Amino acid sequence: MVVSVLSLGACGGEQYVEIKGTPVCPNATPNAVVSATPSAGPQAPVAPVLAADEGMWLLNDFPTERVKAQYGFAPDKAWLDHARLSSVRVGRGCSGSFISKQGLVMTNHHCAEGCIANLSTKKKDLNKLGFNAQTDKEETACPGMSIDQLVDITDVTARIDGATKGKQDKAFLDAQHAEIQKAEKECVSPGFRCDVVTLYQGGRYHLYKYRRYDDVRLVFAPEAAIGFFGGDPDNFNFPRFDLDMALVRAYDNGKPVATEANYFAWSKEGPKASEPTFVTGHPGRTSRTITTAQLAFLRDIANPTRLLRWSEMRGMLTRYSAESPEKARLARPDLFRVENALKGVKGREAALLDPEFFGSKVTEERSLRARVDGDPALKEQVGGAWDAIAAAQKDAQALYIRHEMLETGWAFGSDLFDHARDLLRLTEEETKASDRLLEYSASRAERVRQRILSNEPFDRDYETMKLTASLTKMVEMLGPDDAVVKKILAGKSPAEVAQNAIKTTKLVDQKARKELLVGGKSAVVASTDPMLALAKLVDDDARAIRKTWEEKVEAVERKNGELVAKARFAAFGTSIYPDATGTLRVSIGHVEGWMEGDKKVEPFTTFGGAFDRATGKEPFALPKSWLDAKSKLDLTAKLNFVTTNDIIGGNSGSPLIDKEGKIIGLIFDGNIHSLGGDYGYEPKNNRSVAVHSGAILHALDKVYGAQRILGELTR
Amino acid sequence: MVVSVLSLGACGGEQYVEIKGTPVCPNATPNAVVSATPSAGPQAPVAPVLAADEGMWLLNDFPTERVKAQYGFAPDKAWLDHARLSSVRVGRGCSGSFISKQGLVMTNHHCAEGCIANLSTKKKDLNKLGFNAQTDKEETACPGMSIDQLVDITDVTARIDGATKGKQDKAFLDAQHAEIQKAEKECVSPGFRCDVVTLYQGGRYHLYKYRRYDDVRLVFAPEAAIGFFGGDPDNFNFPRFDLDMALVRAYDNGKPVATEANYFAWSKEGPKASEPTFVTGHPGRTSRTITTAQLAFLRDIANPTRLLRWSEMRGMLTRYSAESPEKARLARPDLFRVENALKGVKGREAALLDPEFFGSKVTEERSLRARVDGDPALKEQVGGAWDAIAAAQKDAQALYIRHEMLETGWAFGSDLFDHARDLLRLTEEETKASDRLLEYSASRAERVRQRILSNEPFDRDYETMKLTASLTKMVEMLGPDDAVVKKILAGKSPAEVAQNAIKTTKLVDQKARKELLVGGKSAVVASTDPMLALAKLVDDDARAIRKTWEEKVEAVERKNGELVAKARFAAFGTSIYPDATGTLRVSIGHVEGWMEGDKKVEPFTTFGGAFDRATGKEPFALPKSWLDAKSKLDLTAKLNFVTTNDIIGGNSGSPLIDKEGKIIGLIFDGNIHSLGGDYGYEPKNNRSVAVHSGAILHALDKVYGAQRILGELTR
Repeated sequence: MVVSVLSLGACGGEQYVEIKGTPVCPNATPNAVVSATPSAGPQAPVAPVLAADEGMWLLNDFPTERVKAQYGFAPDKAWLDHARLSSVRVGRGCSGSFISKQGLVMTNHHCAEGCIANLSTKKKDLNKLGFNAQTDKEETACPGMSIDQLVDITDVTARIDGATKGKQDKAFLDAQHAEIQKAEKECVSPGFRCDVVTLYQGGRYHLYKYRRYDDVRLVFAPEAAIGFFGGDPDNFNFPRFDLDMALVRAYDNGKPVATEANYFAWSKEGPKASEPTFVTGHPGRTSRTITTAQLAFLRDIANPTRLLRWSEMRGMLTRYSAESPEKARLARPDLFRVENALKGVKGREAALLDPEFFGSKVTEERSLRARVDGDPALKEQVGGAWDAIAAAQKDAQALYIRHEMLETGWAFGSDLFDHARDLLRLTEEETKASDRLLEYSASRAERVRQRILSNEPFDRDYETMKLTASLTKMVEMLGPDDAVVKKILAGKSPAEVAQNAIKTTKLVDQKARKELLVGGKSAVVASTDPMLALAKLVDDDARAIRKTWEEKVEAVERKNGELVAKARFAAFGTSIYPDATGTLRVSIGHVEGWMEGDKKVEPFTTFGGAFDRATGKEPFALPKSWLDAKSKLDLTAKLNFVTTNDIIGGNSGSPLIDKEGKIIGLIFDGNIHSLGGDYGYEPKNNRSVAVHSGAILHALDKVYGAQRILGELTR
Repeated sequence: MVVSVLSLGACGGEQYVEIKGTPVCPNATPNAVVSATPSAGPQAPVAPVLAADEGMWLLNDFPTERVKAQYGFAPDKAWLDHARLSSVRVGRGCSGSFISKQGLVMTNHHCAEGCIANLSTKKKDLNKLGFNAQTDKEETACPGMSIDQLVDITDVTARIDGATKGKQDKAFLDAQHAEIQKAEKECVSPGFRCDVVTLYQGGRYHLYKYRRYDDVRLVFAPEAAIGFFGGDPDNFNFPRFDLDMALVRAYDNGKPVATEANYFAWSKEGPKASEPTFVTGHPGRTSRTITTAQLAFLRDIANPTRLLRWSEMRGMLTRYSAESPEKARLARPDLFRVENALKGVKGREAALLDPEFFGSKVTEERSLRARVDGDPALKEQVGGAWDAIAAAQKDAQALYIRHEMLETGWAFGSDLFDHARDLLRLTEEETKASDRLLEYSASRAERVRQRILSNEPFDRDYETMKLTASLTKMVEMLGPDDAVVKKILAGKSPAEVAQNAIKTTKLVDQKARKELLVGGKSAVVASTDPMLALAKLVDDDARAIRKTWEEKVEAVERKNGELVAKARFAAFGTSIYPDATGTLRVSIGHVEGWMEGDKKVEPFTTFGGAFDRATGKEPFALPKSWLDAKSKLDLTAKLNFVTTNDIIGGNSGSPLIDKEGKIIGLIFDGNIHSLGGDYGYEPKNNRSVAVHSGAILHALDKVYGAQRILGELTR
């Protein structure tokens, strides 16, 4: 599943993949927030070799000529503006689209899974039962879920560059953070969210303004058995037979949002083979332009470390799930995320371990360096950047585990700790006039507040299990003789520390968190809540390693990454697309199967195929509703299909639209060959996987009798 | 812990590391059983650069001059013969030594752990309680445990080479297997075991004859809390505070074996700083001479795959252990093995990922290749070997998972399956006049029979958990559409298949297995036992992938590995030591600490240090016996120490002896820098870790009051 998760400070204010309670920076070396004015010098805009259909393009910088040449059609500004306003970011790490005038939003089942889990109880498991609101009143609020609509984009490159001009290292970084906070603060107002987005590793800075909807309610979800039919074995594979959809609705002041013209109409027919397919969505992060030294760090250190940690977590959650159906229900979202992340990073690691692929990266870098070396002025300015970044990887290697453990929070694998840290840091940072941690700055504080006040339920036993496991991992990875480890354990076992922190914490209760938030720093300081005590105990150490990491790794990577970016941007300008940044992009492709070895994989699957594949055993058990409806279904109707669109984690829930801007499908996955997409697009076999627009109508009609919803869609 | 595990066919009849029920070939590309007569040509014996104290030497080919030059002393033949006959192999993958005239054998606590677990019950957990037989009668038989004493060595190089002369690929391999079986069969007789051992990757073949003792009884074991004090966090670390010892006794015809002069006397004082220390033991396997292409395969494919699988298993076993003390007891041996293997392979992987280390391997290979290229005759004969091996790695990559899953048995993670496969294959192979699978050949059948008839207890719930997990992994790794997977599942879930196979299998019962064994092929064929049915169901597929693997990978590696070995052996002869082969070796070193960064690590720890390190919480909780005895103990007495001896997994339980052949310590571990020892010896920081001989006496006396045992040791 191509899901990613946005926000939170653990990754320096950038996107992270959230393993519940364990935010994970997708890259150990986050794409640099670097400053580099595109050189206006004499460089000819030498276009790099892009594969056909490669690219996650900015909607305000669309490769019109390129697309027209390939497809005989390219969207104009009106088309792109409409697509921008009809596309949304869903929750932390998914995409979606408005599909009616009344704020109805389509996304994936697995993107609404947090909501579905939070609205479930031991007696009423919506993952098993599905959900279909028969009336407005039955639409139920999703705790903590939000919808962002990108309403405005401003280029702020000049002001950010002005603020950092002549500055070095940490001073450079601090000045940049300060200016970003200022720009965001000037932009933000209630109901909105503003982010300065770093494009082209610092070639451009754009200020994105979002209309933010916090009142999001569940309208429809099928059973997980069909939403995620085939489970982990079929994940990232094709042929596929999933109705991986969910519908939610954005509310404002207790009423459905009036979407007006900003929604996509529906194409029952779906894609036509000869026509281009467009995906608008929020690809989370790619690392297609980082240096080979950074890629080697990911390949040899960061990816293997994560894979081992997640594998262990998977084993633990699998066993926990086997203990009872209720425990399985509790663990399900985490288990899904872990398995999805595992499969994804395995694929990325396989790409990096492929000598041919890594070799192409080396060649690419050599070619750019040769270009730099051929230009004396550029060489003097930029020539040392690659080696400097390579040197920083040694520091990264030494600091990595400690940084991830204490600051990213691997050691503290319970959401309750995140609440504690948010409360502690937000109330602390709010007392500062300047130099705040970026993610707790004035412009971003509101999101933190929303996070703190979300009202998802907690199970103390489950949280204790997770915290015990992560503290045990901390002891393993930092060693029992580490001073922080000793301080945290204080002669106790990890299990005892976890039990202590969770058994009586009031942070499970939204009201208690609200009281502390309202009470501010003095209330938080005075509190004796044991989970808050744990957060306090480690905060100095966590901030210390963060500072070291920022100085020794991030600052070096940013400064020198900026120089590399400068060389690249000077050469190619916007004839290339920027690496994904969790913000809105459009990709262009078309329906096409591929050759798996010597076997042709057809692009479409059918309803009948789902019944053929079903064994009656999880994860290949169709839900009763489908078995009952079989005779009413057109088994030849198309269910899923693949296209050549260039997508990545974060694109889950993206609409697939045709030339006329109509929904022809719903992106929910990439195939196995897409997994290296983090580091490069492989045109021959890389495919995105979508639910067919007609299949959604057919299932809503024949399986779920969801006439209320069908009536709302414009066909 | 430097434990390894011997025998079983899954690794082509070679050593494997056993994760209970899941035999794991230590190398995906087992050290070749290749034939290469040492060239008697004009090559000057150019000695390679060996580090000081590097080497796991043959006792019948000892580097006398080298050792004498370094230490002013070298053992003579009598010393070495006495050491050989006083050293033993313990169980599958450990070492030990006779330490009395009455067959008393010293090994590690973790080497006797299988026995300790098998003799434990829910009510009487010997891991918690320890064990101290007060009389002969209380000495209790260890199910399935055996002791091998190496009584004779014959050089059979000429006959093996003669049998394979002029043969290629599979024919070569088959002829070699046949001749090995013949040589072993001629040698073996009741109470003995014979193995043809391949040394120098085929430079030499030696026939080893062992006196085998099957009646092994537990005499003494301390509590696991002190045997493995510090647990996984301290494993492979130092300073260390473990009494990782156990005593067993070899019996013959119901009486303690009369060891006569073949035992080591005791040195209460332990090692003297200036003197050499000798380790005699059974290092399991090193891969110091395989090609860089093979190393890259381990680094990129085999090691990462194992690490992920074991990490997941660790998570599962950890959670299972948390469910109840009884479950913790059941899972303990597996959890220990998994954690130990994980830490070991992580260290090996880190070595391979170290550019400097891997670079040295590349340089070494280039140098040998240059030498070959400089000799036209040698070049024509050997020159293509490296590339051929590199090409085989591509096949290995394609076949690896399937081979490990079906033939090595990753898919079938219950010991009960191993029993079923042993019964199925032994009774089948016994009907064949020739072409038997090597591990079921006439000369080796007796060991299989012993394995089948061992009477360890089984817990069906626990076995079901493991089999479910491994079958689930099979579905993941081969995919749900794989024909074998479909055949095994037959529409059921992995959990159902596992329950089916285990719920009513009679193979839990030694008597039932004996009946089948006695009944032979017809009885096995007629049996409807569900576990046997599973073994039958997959046997053709498992044999098929084994055959393909042997042809495409093993045969190529052997044939060409032989050529590489030829080049190396021609150059260096026996002035270098052969890679470890699970057979008896001696290594020479001395007591010495090391510098950990800028911190000096002292070579000795004391009893007092253990009390200082104790927190009262597992794994840092000293047992009650130690807490009670504290006032009686000399807290300044030495407990553990490190030496420079070159050891590896399999050396666990090895005696550490002085010039006079007296016990000065008991090897139980290597430090963290020893973990890359599989691929090369790093003299600066690589250390082996031992219990001090005086500490053993002191603890037996003051903590355990084990006067009966003390009286038996010659001091």
